[in-house]
Amino acid sequence: MGKMIPRAFVLAMLIIALTVVPALADGPDPTGAETLKADPNKAVNFAWTLMAAFLVFFMQAGFAMVETGLSRAKNAVAVLTKNFMDGLIGGLAFWAFGFAFMFGGSAIAAGLSEGNPLIGLSGFFLTGQSYDVTTAMLWFFQMVFAATAATIVSGAMAERTKTTAYLAYSFLISALIYPIYGKWVWGGGWLANLFQYLPFLGEGIGARDFAGSGVVHAVGGFVALAGAWMVGPRIGKFKKDGTPNVIPGHNMTLVALGTFILFFGWFGFNPGSTLAATDLRISVIAVNTFLAGAAGATAAIYYGLYRNGKLDLGLAANGSLAGLVGITAPCAYVPAWAAVVIGIIAAFVLIGALYFVERVLKVDDVVGAVAVHGFNGLWGLLAVGIFADGTYGGVKGLIAGEWAQLVAQLINMATVTVWALGTGLLVFGFIKRTIGLRASREEEISGLDIPEHGYEAYPADGKLAPAPIAE
Amino acid sequence: MGKMIPRAFVLAMLIIALTVVPALADGPDPTGAETLKADPNKAVNFAWTLMAAFLVFFMQAGFAMVETGLSRAKNAVAVLTKNFMDGLIGGLAFWAFGFAFMFGGSAIAAGLSEGNPLIGLSGFFLTGQSYDVTTAMLWFFQMVFAATAATIVSGAMAERTKTTAYLAYSFLISALIYPIYGKWVWGGGWLANLFQYLPFLGEGIGARDFAGSGVVHAVGGFVALAGAWMVGPRIGKFKKDGTPNVIPGHNMTLVALGTFILFFGWFGFNPGSTLAATDLRISVIAVNTFLAGAAGATAAIYYGLYRNGKLDLGLAANGSLAGLVGITAPCAYVPAWAAVVIGIIAAFVLIGALYFVERVLKVDDVVGAVAVHGFNGLWGLLAVGIFADGTYGGVKGLIAGEWAQLVAQLINMATVTVWALGTGLLVFGFIKRTIGLRASREEEISGLDIPEHGYEAYPADGKLAPAPIAE
Amino acid sequence: MGKMIPRAFVLAMLIIALTVVPALADGPDPTGAETLKADPNKAVNFAWTLMAAFLVFFMQAGFAMVETGLSRAKNAVAVLTKNFMDGLIGGLAFWAFGFAFMFGGSAIAAGLSEGNPLIGLSGFFLTGQSYDVTTAMLWFFQMVFAATAATIVSGAMAERTKTTAYLAYSFLISALIYPIYGKWVWGGGWLANLFQYLPFLGEGIGARDFAGSGVVHAVGGFVALAGAWMVGPRIGKFKKDGTPNVIPGHNMTLVALGTFILFFGWFGFNPGSTLAATDLRISVIAVNTFLAGAAGATAAIYYGLYRNGKLDLGLAANGSLAGLVGITAPCAYVPAWAAVVIGIIAAFVLIGALYFVERVLKVDDVVGAVAVHGFNGLWGLLAVGIFADGTYGGVKGLIAGEWAQLVAQLINMATVTVWALGTGLLVFGFIKRTIGLRASREEEISGLDIPEHGYEAYPADGKLAPAPIAE
Repeated sequence: MGKMIPRAFVLAMLIIALTVVPALADGPDPTGAETLKADPNKAVNFAWTLMAAFLVFFMQAGFAMVETGLSRAKNAVAVLTKNFMDGLIGGLAFWAFGFAFMFGGSAIAAGLSEGNPLIGLSGFFLTGQSYDVTTAMLWFFQMVFAATAATIVSGAMAERTKTTAYLAYSFLISALIYPIYGKWVWGGGWLANLFQYLPFLGEGIGARDFAGSGVVHAVGGFVALAGAWMVGPRIGKFKKDGTPNVIPGHNMTLVALGTFILFFGWFGFNPGSTLAATDLRISVIAVNTFLAGAAGATAAIYYGLYRNGKLDLGLAANGSLAGLVGITAPCAYVPAWAAVVIGIIAAFVLIGALYFVERVLKVDDVVGAVAVHGFNGLWGLLAVGIFADGTYGGVKGLIAGEWAQLVAQLINMATVTVWALGTGLLVFGFIKRTIGLRASREEEISGLDIPEHGYEAYPADGKLAPAPIAE
Repeated sequence: MGKMIPRAFVLAMLIIALTVVPALADGPDPTGAETLKADPNKAVNFAWTLMAAFLVFFMQAGFAMVETGLSRAKNAVAVLTKNFMDGLIGGLAFWAFGFAFMFGGSAIAAGLSEGNPLIGLSGFFLTGQSYDVTTAMLWFFQMVFAATAATIVSGAMAERTKTTAYLAYSFLISALIYPIYGKWVWGGGWLANLFQYLPFLGEGIGARDFAGSGVVHAVGGFVALAGAWMVGPRIGKFKKDGTPNVIPGHNMTLVALGTFILFFGWFGFNPGSTLAATDLRISVIAVNTFLAGAAGATAAIYYGLYRNGKLDLGLAANGSLAGLVGITAPCAYVPAWAAVVIGIIAAFVLIGALYFVERVLKVDDVVGAVAVHGFNGLWGLLAVGIFADGTYGGVKGLIAGEWAQLVAQLINMATVTVWALGTGLLVFGFIKRTIGLRASREEEISGLDIPEHGYEAYPADGKLAPAPIAE
Repeated sequence: MGKMIPRAFVLAMLIIALTVVPALADGPDPTGAETLKADPNKAVNFAWTLMAAFLVFFMQAGFAMVETGLSRAKNAVAVLTKNFMDGLIGGLAFWAFGFAFMFGGSAIAAGLSEGNPLIGLSGFFLTGQSYDVTTAMLWFFQMVFAATAATIVSGAMAERTKTTAYLAYSFLISALIYPIYGKWVWGGGWLANLFQYLPFLGEGIGARDFAGSGVVHAVGGFVALAGAWMVGPRIGKFKKDGTPNVIPGHNMTLVALGTFILFFGWFGFNPGSTLAATDLRISVIAVNTFLAGAAGATAAIYYGLYRNGKLDLGLAANGSLAGLVGITAPCAYVPAWAAVVIGIIAAFVLIGALYFVERVLKVDDVVGAVAVHGFNGLWGLLAVGIFADGTYGGVKGLIAGEWAQLVAQLINMATVTVWALGTGLLVFGFIKRTIGLRASREEEISGLDIPEHGYEAYPADGKLAPAPIAE
């Protein structure tokens, strides 16, 4: 099972060798000449979407820096390895399987014809009919989103999870957990078309999640909760009476740097989700994204000052991320003032959820991923149902006088929570019983870096670094 | 007064609640469909401007890394907190007040009709008529510029300023100091139209500052001078005879990383200032930006080698930034060879100004912000009057045989210096007398991190990090 | 000779002063108005190419972080100085000389009329006819590529090379070595048109290197081999019996961060090389780039796990870079499945080449640059001849049933190896005999930072940092 990924790879290569390569069939337009002729706007829309996707890719570095900074130096190589590899392995899984499960049957690009409201069934390996420029563009953008969902989990499970186990997980979330739920919301699945099953909602009403508060963040956040719960708390995290200890990380500079990178990348995440620069709403989305992140950070840091008399950088960083997660679903649907309100509330959702996870559930989440991504992912979904003002896409929340969208959002919130927690427990339970989920007590105490990776992150600190071995 | 920002926020929310939300009026085109129909080029121009703005946003990370690296580790959390929060608080201030003061009356987008040559008076909170895609695009680009001006000040005042005081300042510069001067140059104010008041200059002549050597950098730099002077030098910076000590920072890797990020972001700052990709001059601007930064770094590092026999990385970094600041105003108006000359001269302006600030004024500027941004901001304004070759926007300097532009630039240089120094002294004087500007002697000696923020940046260095508390 | 660069600069300025400035002739379209009118698509194509180039510029930060992390802390300032300056000095060299040698005679933009199949002879200093928006756009994109080639060499020669010597080299590679070979492949030179000299290849066949596996990476990699060989191994690298010691660097977090930045920048490098967003193949290129990098990292880390039982982060990072180098030449010509195969093979080329360089050649390459960039650069060229499927640009490899492209690629592989090694030996031999290439034994043992740069990177580690001098 530790060899699951290499084996899955060999299997994938065999599938290709036996079925796909011989055909060498191309999609309708692998060079894009026809596509451009049919719609000259594709040039600017491809450029916009790809650039946005590159920014989202870079968020991987942000997650890596935040988690590394909040972990102890003795586990830094393990943290970095997980964060470096999970998006790459997740991307390969999404290439082989995930994309097809998520967008097959949506027919929104070539090669995506087969599927049903529960799961897609074509587009595997981007071969055959899906060797097309539009399909490739869509895949790339969606892949970096899948990779984001995958990497959210890492931080919650840091400092005690076996790296091999974690990498096996990252294959499975990107191949199965993320795309199947994604299909329901973004791939033309049942949640997107709730009105077909619940006609009282009114024609066209379905779950709306513009850039993925639910699809990306709530999925990542609640799978993280399942993982952190199953792997158990770090040694020393909880006292015998169940109250938590603070375990400081090793580098707040990395936390700040990582948060800046994440905030930067979010400008690809949200505005890029139009998949089109011809949709000029991108400017409003960018404004809302900034305002919610800024309001979240400001509310969090001043609340901390009010409560503890200190300006807590870590809380401010998580506050900004909370605001960003909260605005991700509603970013296209709400006015600027609502973005500020959403960001402020996100800070309090964060603070409440941090308390709930640590004090009530007694789960050890090293970076606060469950509170930031899970609970604020739900808040983002809810906010659509409240603050959507009807100016975009016809989506109307309470402030526009409609209640049906809010109902659809509540159904989606329940669905994503159950799905992510349930499949998360299944996957981590499966890994726990096969290759094992947790490092040994000795490894955890000494740090995972030497036993799992063979070296430490800072072999000879600072200026003391000697020439290691004389001539 | 330490609660000024939260109170300003509550006030802002109240204003919204009472006046804006009930109206729920939209601008002429909140979705952009009409705007695109009227001008299909808006798609590529929005994409260009927003992407450029994202790069400028990322410069916040660059400023944070440079200042953190040049400060001592005991103040790292304070430095990071200031740099993380100032742009976000500044952005909120610019949303509530600054943007309206800067662009009201310019009529360059919807909702910006009210104002006069001294100050704008509409566009507050981006509500009502300013809920429009073009206004939102303009706001976003201008907001990241305001945030840049705000964060420049941080480095000059590092290692002894109370963080709460600094954050109050960052609200005020972005709400008032930056936008009012900005109105004069970029919002159709009196400096932009000097010829109306000084007809001898000739029709159409006014101050020209393409991407903000003056609006952003000189404002930030001279407010920084006011702040660093008012807060006083760090303990140990000057000997009893007034000669300075060198106080090394703690991490040159961060300085290099931050400078790379700033240089990268400058490619959004300067070329993005066209607000349009249909203005193909963007390529010339990018070329000039690179050349000036490269020439500044090269001139500075070889000058240092010539003087001291050492290759000084910090000087090279500041040399590149000096060149970049120097080219910011003239970047669109000059040929490539002039960009190289401007960059080389910027390096010597830097070196002279570093000496002047530290040895003559006896002001302790931790990162050299006054020399880099203030004095080279002035140099950039001057360079327009010398090197503008008349190929773009009709702007002609001495090499094109005209003197009037140079006069306009000199008037602008005097104006920005007086404005930024004067308002800087007012604001920091106000803060000093209310919440206080400087940390206590004990806090400064121990480092600001524990007393102001509650923890240190590197709690357990390197590999030694223990499990903090036994089970 | 340590003053070569300042002298070259003064010379360049004199040339300008005497010949260019007086003329002040402009190119056909310095503002771009005519260019846009002739082809409105130029707006999106300029925006795309410039944004991509900005990402490539940012790769400099990635190289700096990777090399710094893999070096010892005592040499960090030297490493950072080299990496900060080489791209800037290289860019100035490319402005003065390199661009003209590379694209003169290609006639692909204004001012590039003079040249022959061996070398270009117009476009110096971007003056006269080359003061044109299209030429400026082309220059900027090509300049960041030249800077990438220059900086590849740094890592191989780290920790014992005199910084002044290295900076002299960076001028020469960007002025001469890189552009002359670049002319042959990308400037309409003899390798691009091999069929004219070897008619049996068939009409139109020539060396194809879409984004520079050869032009950038193999050139950088084999110049690096020449340099690392001439400067000799670090003290302590090899035992008396010739077997190598492992010399750990000082910060794996920097290695991971740098690799993320490089991967991010590669999305400018490869898709940007279309120079046009109207070429919708950019989406396929982005997909291939990701897949090859991901497959390279995955294959490398699991091979390491299989061999040593450890998940080696450094090997994963180099594996991703190997895959990225390998896909750089074929990225536009191959289907997705081939990108995965190319990436996997790249990991094994990396592992073999690391062994070959260290164990067989006994060359000390601190970061593995020769294996990553040199040998995988060759692999990328070869892969075009194998996997090009004929869907793009008419380039057909073995899988499309053609052999001629493979022959052209083999000729190119031999050419680039001989050229880069040969000129690398010449240049470093010249520097060695003039200003000297290697730091003294004492400097190397103490670290280069104090003797060459005057200070260390981490003057007072972590929280211990004291106030340096009492009042």
